[in-house]
Amino acid sequence: MDLVIGIDIGGTKTKIGLVDKEGSCLVHSYFRTKEYADFNEFLNKIKSEIDKHAHSFDHDINLIGCGIGAPNASSKNGTLEHAANLKWKGVVPILSLLNEKINLPLRIMNDASAAALGEMLFGNAKNMTDFIVMTLGTGLGAGIVANGQLIEGYDGFAGELGHTDMTIGDGRLTGLNVRGGLEAYVSATGLKRTILYMMSKYMNDSRFRGIAFNDLHGEDITKAAEEGDFIALKAFDYTAKIFGMALANFTAFTQPEAIFLMGGLVNSGKWILEPLERYFEDYLIEVYKGKVKLLRSGLPEKTPAISGAAALIWQNHK
Amino acid sequence: MDLVIGIDIGGTKTKIGLVDKEGSCLVHSYFRTKEYADFNEFLNKIKSEIDKHAHSFDHDINLIGCGIGAPNASSKNGTLEHAANLKWKGVVPILSLLNEKINLPLRIMNDASAAALGEMLFGNAKNMTDFIVMTLGTGLGAGIVANGQLIEGYDGFAGELGHTDMTIGDGRLTGLNVRGGLEAYVSATGLKRTILYMMSKYMNDSRFRGIAFNDLHGEDITKAAEEGDFIALKAFDYTAKIFGMALANFTAFTQPEAIFLMGGLVNSGKWILEPLERYFEDYLIEVYKGKVKLLRSGLPEKTPAISGAAALIWQNHK
Repeated sequence: MDLVIGIDIGGTKTKIGLVDKEGSCLVHSYFRTKEYADFNEFLNKIKSEIDKHAHSFDHDINLIGCGIGAPNASSKNGTLEHAANLKWKGVVPILSLLNEKINLPLRIMNDASAAALGEMLFGNAKNMTDFIVMTLGTGLGAGIVANGQLIEGYDGFAGELGHTDMTIGDGRLTGLNVRGGLEAYVSATGLKRTILYMMSKYMNDSRFRGIAFNDLHGEDITKAAEEGDFIALKAFDYTAKIFGMALANFTAFTQPEAIFLMGGLVNSGKWILEPLERYFEDYLIEVYKGKVKLLRSGLPEKTPAISGAAALIWQNHK
Repeated sequence: MDLVIGIDIGGTKTKIGLVDKEGSCLVHSYFRTKEYADFNEFLNKIKSEIDKHAHSFDHDINLIGCGIGAPNASSKNGTLEHAANLKWKGVVPILSLLNEKINLPLRIMNDASAAALGEMLFGNAKNMTDFIVMTLGTGLGAGIVANGQLIEGYDGFAGELGHTDMTIGDGRLTGLNVRGGLEAYVSATGLKRTILYMMSKYMNDSRFRGIAFNDLHGEDITKAAEEGDFIALKAFDYTAKIFGMALANFTAFTQPEAIFLMGGLVNSGKWILEPLERYFEDYLIEVYKGKVKLLRSGLPEKTPAISGAAALIWQNHK
């Protein structure tokens, strides 16, 4: 059986799995990215995870390639460059270094672009020519498809929408020092920052007054919203409002038929999605109103990013 | 000789000309759009201008089609829809109505998209696959090319960047009621609004303290800057700063190789372009720095929009 290695390098976790030609992830694992500050050790860890998975089958498998999704990856240069949410700084020639350990066709792309390819090959965008995939993890990324083609950009860095400024230079700083950058508001980290902001703004009681920033997790904020915590509800509404404005802006760029939402923040379910739909529709200008669908990803629920990364290879084997 | 009719419908002027296959405009004229509140009379005026031009040649010409650039035009529907800077409201089926008067192949597109096609066919983008054209007239529009193809969007309305919000809902209103919308700052009208803002902010003397808003023209602001008028200089710097931020945001979307600038505001020359280049480069995130060129249009200096509109037809006759 032919299988593709899919790797998703995230600010928090790195996920690795083996993916069949329907996009199903047959076996997968993850480890914490930040525990591998040395890049060579990071690559060794990847290699050992792949070997473990490859030996877990009791029938023959044939690995035909390895696709990688990562923040600030250049598809054209095969590099990670100046990533805000990764430890390795500067320009890291990841493809050539990984190739020394894995002798297979390799391809890398911005994680959200990989997710967009995955959505086209395996998910809910099979018949669409114009759509955007937004990934909301530690940071915020975008994969943009127009005229049926992924937009990679002149140098392979299209879709870095987490660092677009929403505040004419007067807002929160992102990890790349962009003032008012979107991911400082709309991401797992952005939501946590908004919890602090709302506690600074209001005097209302909240469970979060007893929790340090470093101990704060997205699931806790969802749980607090379910319990009616005022600060959590305010934070979700604020996040949804800014995200709705941003998506209305992005619509004006390529006018997508649909925008797919993926990643940690989406796990907060209706607390983020219901106000988002309302704000988004409200902020769209007339010519776009009622025409842009907000959709969930159709990739496998537990391993969307791995399937997306594998799509980089499967795209050329279909 | 084969010629194409090129029409540019702007908020202030409508321009009409006949364009050869090299993109040169052999004869042209314009009239004031706002004097034709009745749409049928507007179309009759267009028809009579075309007839006048067609009869001005002393050799045989063959009109092979008519291309139209206009704000808020849908290439896919053949309509003008909810245009902020035009008198005719709602949805105007311009192509079918014009076809009753002109029996030629007709095509319409957002004016900035037409300019982008023109730049690819006749101008400075002949060998580029990823670029953006910004038109800065009464409003602000964008024509976006990625992977060598114009991005039209699901419904033909891509590139309406004048109505993207730069201020998370806390700024000037555009003609479509978008708060903080870019064209409320960066356009001929936006610059005039900024003159008022700077006079409200500072007490410095200025020639503009004696001029009413309705009597204010872009050329006067350029002239004032040349004379060292404090308010004019502040206004250009502020416009350039916001535009630089906006272009840095747009770069994060499709990562163009170049951004072309066209339209009235560009006529202010170094007063807008020098600070713009500085701010733009400053606001780009690391992966884009030094990679995106800001260029002037290579279309005929006096009739770029007419040549752009004609490109809609010439595109299919090359």
